[in-house]
Amino acid sequence: MVNWNNLDTLKSFGELESIKHVNLAEIMSGENGAKRVKEYSVPMAAGLSYNYAAKEVDDDIIAKLDALAKETQLIDKFEALYNGEVINTGEKRMVLHQLTRGQLGNKVEADGVDKREFYLKEQKRIADFANKVHSGEIANAKGEKFTTVVQIGIGGSDLGPRAMYLALENWAYRTGNFKMAAKFISNVDPDDASCVLNSIDVAHSIFILVSKSGTTLETLTNESFVTDALKKAGLDPSKHMIAVTSETSPLAKSDNYLEAFFMDDYIGGRYSSTSGVGGAVLSLAFGPDVFAQFLDGAAEEDKLSANADLKKNPAMLDALIGVYERNVLGYGSTAVLPYSQGLSRFPAHLQQLDMESNGKSVNRFGEPINYVTGPIIFGEPGTNGQHSFYQLLHQGTDIIPLQFIGFKNSQLQNDVDIQGSSSQQKLCANVAAQIVAFACGKKDDNLNKNFKGGRPSSIIVGDELNPKSLGALLAHFENKVMFQGFVWNINSFDQEGVQLGKVLAKRVLAHETEGALTEYAKLLNI
Amino acid sequence: MVNWNNLDTLKSFGELESIKHVNLAEIMSGENGAKRVKEYSVPMAAGLSYNYAAKEVDDDIIAKLDALAKETQLIDKFEALYNGEVINTGEKRMVLHQLTRGQLGNKVEADGVDKREFYLKEQKRIADFANKVHSGEIANAKGEKFTTVVQIGIGGSDLGPRAMYLALENWAYRTGNFKMAAKFISNVDPDDASCVLNSIDVAHSIFILVSKSGTTLETLTNESFVTDALKKAGLDPSKHMIAVTSETSPLAKSDNYLEAFFMDDYIGGRYSSTSGVGGAVLSLAFGPDVFAQFLDGAAEEDKLSANADLKKNPAMLDALIGVYERNVLGYGSTAVLPYSQGLSRFPAHLQQLDMESNGKSVNRFGEPINYVTGPIIFGEPGTNGQHSFYQLLHQGTDIIPLQFIGFKNSQLQNDVDIQGSSSQQKLCANVAAQIVAFACGKKDDNLNKNFKGGRPSSIIVGDELNPKSLGALLAHFENKVMFQGFVWNINSFDQEGVQLGKVLAKRVLAHETEGALTEYAKLLNI
Repeated sequence: MVNWNNLDTLKSFGELESIKHVNLAEIMSGENGAKRVKEYSVPMAAGLSYNYAAKEVDDDIIAKLDALAKETQLIDKFEALYNGEVINTGEKRMVLHQLTRGQLGNKVEADGVDKREFYLKEQKRIADFANKVHSGEIANAKGEKFTTVVQIGIGGSDLGPRAMYLALENWAYRTGNFKMAAKFISNVDPDDASCVLNSIDVAHSIFILVSKSGTTLETLTNESFVTDALKKAGLDPSKHMIAVTSETSPLAKSDNYLEAFFMDDYIGGRYSSTSGVGGAVLSLAFGPDVFAQFLDGAAEEDKLSANADLKKNPAMLDALIGVYERNVLGYGSTAVLPYSQGLSRFPAHLQQLDMESNGKSVNRFGEPINYVTGPIIFGEPGTNGQHSFYQLLHQGTDIIPLQFIGFKNSQLQNDVDIQGSSSQQKLCANVAAQIVAFACGKKDDNLNKNFKGGRPSSIIVGDELNPKSLGALLAHFENKVMFQGFVWNINSFDQEGVQLGKVLAKRVLAHETEGALTEYAKLLNI
Repeated sequence: MVNWNNLDTLKSFGELESIKHVNLAEIMSGENGAKRVKEYSVPMAAGLSYNYAAKEVDDDIIAKLDALAKETQLIDKFEALYNGEVINTGEKRMVLHQLTRGQLGNKVEADGVDKREFYLKEQKRIADFANKVHSGEIANAKGEKFTTVVQIGIGGSDLGPRAMYLALENWAYRTGNFKMAAKFISNVDPDDASCVLNSIDVAHSIFILVSKSGTTLETLTNESFVTDALKKAGLDPSKHMIAVTSETSPLAKSDNYLEAFFMDDYIGGRYSSTSGVGGAVLSLAFGPDVFAQFLDGAAEEDKLSANADLKKNPAMLDALIGVYERNVLGYGSTAVLPYSQGLSRFPAHLQQLDMESNGKSVNRFGEPINYVTGPIIFGEPGTNGQHSFYQLLHQGTDIIPLQFIGFKNSQLQNDVDIQGSSSQQKLCANVAAQIVAFACGKKDDNLNKNFKGGRPSSIIVGDELNPKSLGALLAHFENKVMFQGFVWNINSFDQEGVQLGKVLAKRVLAHETEGALTEYAKLLNI
C-alpha cells in the first residue's frame, strides 16, 4: 500500500533541509576530487554511466536522500505504475509507456486486452509496413519507392520523435541503416508546412499524421496543407498518408489513410517516443531493427529504475539530487548540455518532458502545495553553448545545475587531427574541463577574471550515441521526471495548464471576445 | 559627464523597491485591460510596436523607472558609447557595432581611420564580391556558379548570422531574393562538419571562415575538415574560401582565401550580425540590397534608442521593466516566444546576446555587486511551445516573464482555411489568447484546472518578418541588453567567464592534469 504525502510533511525532508551543505569547490579539489569521480558513478544500460561526483552531495546527503526515497516509497510507486494502477489521477488513467518496451511487472489489462500484447502487435504492424515500404511493395502510384517520410504532429508527437531521429541520423548513415530521410511539420504557422513541402519531392514522400485524439487543430490544419500539395501534384493523398492515433479517434477508420496504427490514452504525448508515435517514423527512417534496439535500451534502463538500491538506480538518484537542488538549495533551473551534435534537439525534448510533467502547483489530489516543483529546463549542444551562454553559468549571479552528456566516439567517425588532437578528443577534453571549471573555479585577484566555482553538474557518459544508448538515455530522463513527480506528490501525467489558451484562441477566432483580448486580436489583425 | 554607480546605491532604485506592486490579473481585466492594450504601446522602427500592457507596471511604476533611467544617465551613457568612449572597460575597447549600420553621433576615429568609413568600405567590398559571385564572375575552377555558401564560425560568428539567415530564408523565396542556400558549421564535434559536408555539393560551394582573432580552435579545426573535403574532391581550397577576420589576424593576409573582409576589436562577437560576420553570408544568400535593408531597420531602431523620452524609447523601456522584474519582483528568467517559424533560432541568438553580456557578478570596475544581474533566456517558437513547456509557464510554482513576438502576415503567404480561419489567423489568435490567459488566468474550483494568472508578458508586433523589421528587432534587443548592463553597472561587452574552460581543455589535451580533471579525462577516454 503506497501513501501519497506532500514533501513538506515528511520527516526525511526535514532532515534533508537541516543537514550540512557541502563546499563543492573544496571537495572536488585534489585527491578527494579524483576519488569522488571514481566512486560517485552508477552504471546505466547500454554501457552508459551516471557520474555525480560534481554534484553538491556527500555520503551523508546521499543517505538522507535514500531515506527520502524510502519514505516516499518511490520504488513501490513505480511498481504500482507499471502494474497498471491509475497513477494519472487527474485524467483517471493508467500510465503505461514503459509497456511499449518491456514488461516490468504483472500483466496489465485495459479495454479488454493485454496492453503489452496490444503495443507489441502495433510494433509488429509498423515493422511489417516499414519493411514493405523499404522493399517497394508499398510504393507510390507509379510503383516507385518512397524516399522521404514526413511526420505531421505537434508537442509530444513532434519533439521526441524529431530529437530521436536527429540523434540517430548520422549513426544510421555510417552503419548502413539509413533507409529514408525524415522531415517534421509541427507549427500552425503556415510557413512551417510550406517550407517543408517546398523542400521535398511529394511524389516520393509518405506522411505520418500523428494525433492521439485525432482532433489536434495544428495537426489537422497541417494535414490539409499536405493533402492540397499532393492533389496539386496530381496524386491521391490517401496513398501517401498513414495515421498514428487512438482506436477511438475519427482518424482510426478513415479511408484517407493507407493504414492506421494505434496508441492509447495510457501513453502521454511526451512519453510516446517508444510507442507508434516514434515507432512509425523511426522504423521507416532506419528500419524496424534499429527501432527494436532503441526499445531494448529503454527497457534495460527501466529495469534499473525498479531497483530499490539508490546507488544502483541512476534515474532515482538523479531525481533525488534534483529535488535537493530545487527544494533545499533553491536552484530554479537546469541546463542540459549534450556534447554531441546528434543530440541537438534532445534538450528541447527534455524541456517538454520535464516542464510539462512537473510544472504544477497542486498535488495529485488537487490541493495547493507550499514548495517549488519542476525547474526550467534549457540547453544547447557543447561546444556551441560554451561560446554562448556559459558566461552566465560561470560568472552569473545565480547558480544553475548542469546536466552534461558525452560520448567517447563520434557517430560518423570521420575526424581530423589539428594541433595534436582529433576533434572528438577536443570535444571530450572540453566537457571534462568544463565540469572541473564549474565545480572548482579559479581564484584571481582581478575579480572580473575570478571563478568562484561551486556550480554543480553531473555527466552521463557513453561509448557512442546509437539506438540502444539513446533508448537508455531517454528512459533515464522519463523515469527521473516520474520519480520527481512522486517526491513532489504531483501528477506528472496530465497537462491542464495548456487548456485555457486553447479555449481563448477559439474565442478569438469566433470573434467572441471582450476587453484586453479584443484589443490584442485587433493588434494582430484577426 | 557620466557617473557609474551600483544599482543598490541609487535613490530611484530604493523608491522603485518600495512602490506598490500591481495586481496584473486585476488591471488586465475588463475595460481597464482594453485601455492598457491601446495605451501601453510604443512604436518601433519598420512598423513594429512594443506593447507592454500585460507587464506588471502602471503609470506610477513607469514614472519610477523613468527616474531610474535619468539617475543612471542611460541616454548619456549610450551617447558616450556611440561617440567612441571606452565603454568596454575590461578589455579597454570602444563598442562600435551601431556604427556598422549608421552614425548616431560624432565621427569616431581609431587605428588611424574613421570607423564608420571603415565599416562602410568593408560592406561595399562584400557587396561587390557577392554581386560577382551571383553574376558568375567569381566562380569555381570550371567556371560554374557557386550555389551554396557555408559559414564556419562559432558563438557570435554562428548564432546571430544563422538566426538571421533562417529568419529571411522564406521571405527571400517568396520575394525572389533567394540567391544561394546557406549552411553553418560551428561545433567542434566532428559530426557537425561531416554532416554538413555530406549534405552539400562542395564543387559549387563557397565557404566563409569567420574568426576575429583567427585563432578560434573550433573554427580552425572545422576549416581543416573543409579543406580536406575540397582536396579530396580535386578542388583548390583557396578558390572556395573567404575569411571574415580582423586586419591583424593571421588570416588577414593569407593566400588560403579568395578574399578577406575585415571587422575589428570594437565589435563583440554577439553584436556582430550587422558587421561582415553577418554581412558576408547574408549578402551572398540574399544579395547586398537585402542586407542593406536589414541594416536600415537596425539603424532606425538605434535612433529610437537614443531618445531620452522613455515612452518613445522601446529598448530602454523594455530594459527597465526587465530590471524591475529581475531586481524588485525577483524573477530569474525570461522566455522568448516568437510566433513565427522564421524566428526558430532567434531565441538561441538572444540567449547568447543576453546571457553572455549580462551574466556577470562584478561591476564594470571589477568590484563585487550585491544584486542579481542577467536572467536566463530560453524559448521556442509558438505554437510549438504551447504543446511543450507552457504547462509550467501557466501553472508552475515560479513566475517567468514572457517576451512574445508576432506578425500579422506569414512569410511565404501560402495558407489554407480550416474551420473558418487560415493558419496565420490561428497563429495570431493563439498569441493573443496566451497573453490574456497568462495575465488574467481563470478561476476554477478544481485547483488542477485553476489558472492564477499574474504572469507578465510583452509583445512586439509587426506586419511581416522581413529584412527591415528583422534589423529593427535585432537592434531592439542589442540595445535593451546594453541599457540593462548600464543599470546594473556591469560591463556587457567582455566575457572573461569563457576563459577558464579553454585553459583547462588545453591542459587535458596536453595530459597536464591532476585530481578530478585526470579522472574525468579517463572517463571520456582522452
